[in-house]
Amino acid sequence: MELLFLGTSAGQPSKARNVSSTALKLLDERNEVWLFDCGEGTQRQILSTTLKPRKVAKLFITHMHGDHLFGLPGFLASRNFQASDEDGQTELDIFGPIGIKDFVMNSLKLTKTHLAFRINFHELSEAGKIFEDETFEVYTEKLDHTIFCLGYRIVEKNRVGELNSDRLKADGLPFGPLFGKIKKGETVEFEGKTFRPEDYIGDEKIGKVVTILGDTRKTDRSVHLAIGSDVLVHEATYKAGDEKMAKNHGHSSSRQAAEVANEAKVKRLLMNHVSARYMGADISELAQGAKSIFENSFVAKDFYEEKI
Amino acid sequence: MELLFLGTSAGQPSKARNVSSTALKLLDERNEVWLFDCGEGTQRQILSTTLKPRKVAKLFITHMHGDHLFGLPGFLASRNFQASDEDGQTELDIFGPIGIKDFVMNSLKLTKTHLAFRINFHELSEAGKIFEDETFEVYTEKLDHTIFCLGYRIVEKNRVGELNSDRLKADGLPFGPLFGKIKKGETVEFEGKTFRPEDYIGDEKIGKVVTILGDTRKTDRSVHLAIGSDVLVHEATYKAGDEKMAKNHGHSSSRQAAEVANEAKVKRLLMNHVSARYMGADISELAQGAKSIFENSFVAKDFYEEKI
Repeated sequence: MELLFLGTSAGQPSKARNVSSTALKLLDERNEVWLFDCGEGTQRQILSTTLKPRKVAKLFITHMHGDHLFGLPGFLASRNFQASDEDGQTELDIFGPIGIKDFVMNSLKLTKTHLAFRINFHELSEAGKIFEDETFEVYTEKLDHTIFCLGYRIVEKNRVGELNSDRLKADGLPFGPLFGKIKKGETVEFEGKTFRPEDYIGDEKIGKVVTILGDTRKTDRSVHLAIGSDVLVHEATYKAGDEKMAKNHGHSSSRQAAEVANEAKVKRLLMNHVSARYMGADISELAQGAKSIFENSFVAKDFYEEKI
Repeated sequence: MELLFLGTSAGQPSKARNVSSTALKLLDERNEVWLFDCGEGTQRQILSTTLKPRKVAKLFITHMHGDHLFGLPGFLASRNFQASDEDGQTELDIFGPIGIKDFVMNSLKLTKTHLAFRINFHELSEAGKIFEDETFEVYTEKLDHTIFCLGYRIVEKNRVGELNSDRLKADGLPFGPLFGKIKKGETVEFEGKTFRPEDYIGDEKIGKVVTILGDTRKTDRSVHLAIGSDVLVHEATYKAGDEKMAKNHGHSSSRQAAEVANEAKVKRLLMNHVSARYMGADISELAQGAKSIFENSFVAKDFYEEKI
């Protein structure tokens, strides 16, 4: 899986950074992309990437501020348009705070935008598990912003190790349904021989964990949600030293993002949502403010992509 | 006055062209900018220009399709933010079809966006004069699109010519209130001499006329609205030869735009709303399709600016 930053500015776009949107590419894992927030202009940012809007199967909105969702109606229209000539329309799940359905449906209705795909809205008002299937789980936690705001913890489930088919055959088990039984963890008897799964199945593959937060002050709930993540995406609207301003506006400094990363014992911290007031040397200073506390950290730019 | 094209793509943005928005800069005339349509990403396009959002005093929406208005809530938030540190907040008039108020107010309400300036909504359902003050008038006409769609004719009123003060003084009238009377068209007597306005006031300054259309098939109503304009901004979604496709989708080809320009006897045709399917040589072909019928025509690119 890869994280691809489509917009890393705070509040308003700058020439260099668009407003918030982050793609979690799960092409190998699910042949899908999940999008976190969809600020104005996200559909155009996507044109500079290899992302295909029709591959976006789930969309998660962190909170109901315009810089995180004003790109949503346009993205939907664009997804609709681009898929119609190609391989059919797949439905879309939208998770977000109460109000997200009203915003989307009113925008589509007033502009007479008719989508050929179905949207399943999941309006959230509580922390907890919001999604689970065979391979992934998603959890949310309420953060500490000026309005109701969520963080999302995406958990790839561990996968059973690989079956060593060559060794099974060498030990005398002919290829067939018994292979499947062993893969499922059953012990098999064949022509007087016993085949135990633990002898033929490799190590469990540990799933990745990514935590992507919305706008927030430093809070224990971020630590709780992010605990042990491979990657934490945390906002750093302000640079270290500007904590008072950060608190007043419901945001964090880079130092506070690093403190959360440290306390949550994550492996890697990627920072986004950087105030347009910072450029050049300021960004280095902002990055340094985090690094001095949590070494494995980085301030993402638009179009920055990282394999997890 | 100048026309500045902020977005010249049709339906969806491309890398080179953003969705619809056109600024009419009236800085010398009114110290204002008027914006026509506000597609998604307009606030970011503005960052690459010298436009100041707080100078935008009137906003005209041609029709309720997303590519013409999804940038409106973000533009308003940005106008609010950027003015708050500076020279106070000035109110904004928004003209557009019925539904524009609902779209704006619902978007602002759900995202808890509180504007410090007042918006005066003018929802339009009929053709006619929609604005007049001492220096300008604006008229609308219903066009022929897939939904209710307007064109706007912006008329600068003629201005009284300049008073030749030097000549008045040379002829023996001392500078004072009598100058004002002559400027207003009154004949003045002074020390036995008669001063007639026609002898001291230069030629009337003819106001400019600009007609900016929304999406439309070729229609006589465009001709009627644009008649005699200095500049006509007409969509050219398709190139000459694709008239059938244009008609089916409620649009025009470049040839049809040129025919309207011809019939309306305008001085200059600027084309926008170009389908993203066209690039490079296609655009030259699209331009040529108009030029062969109306020579003084041009296909605008994003950020193209022209003095009128």
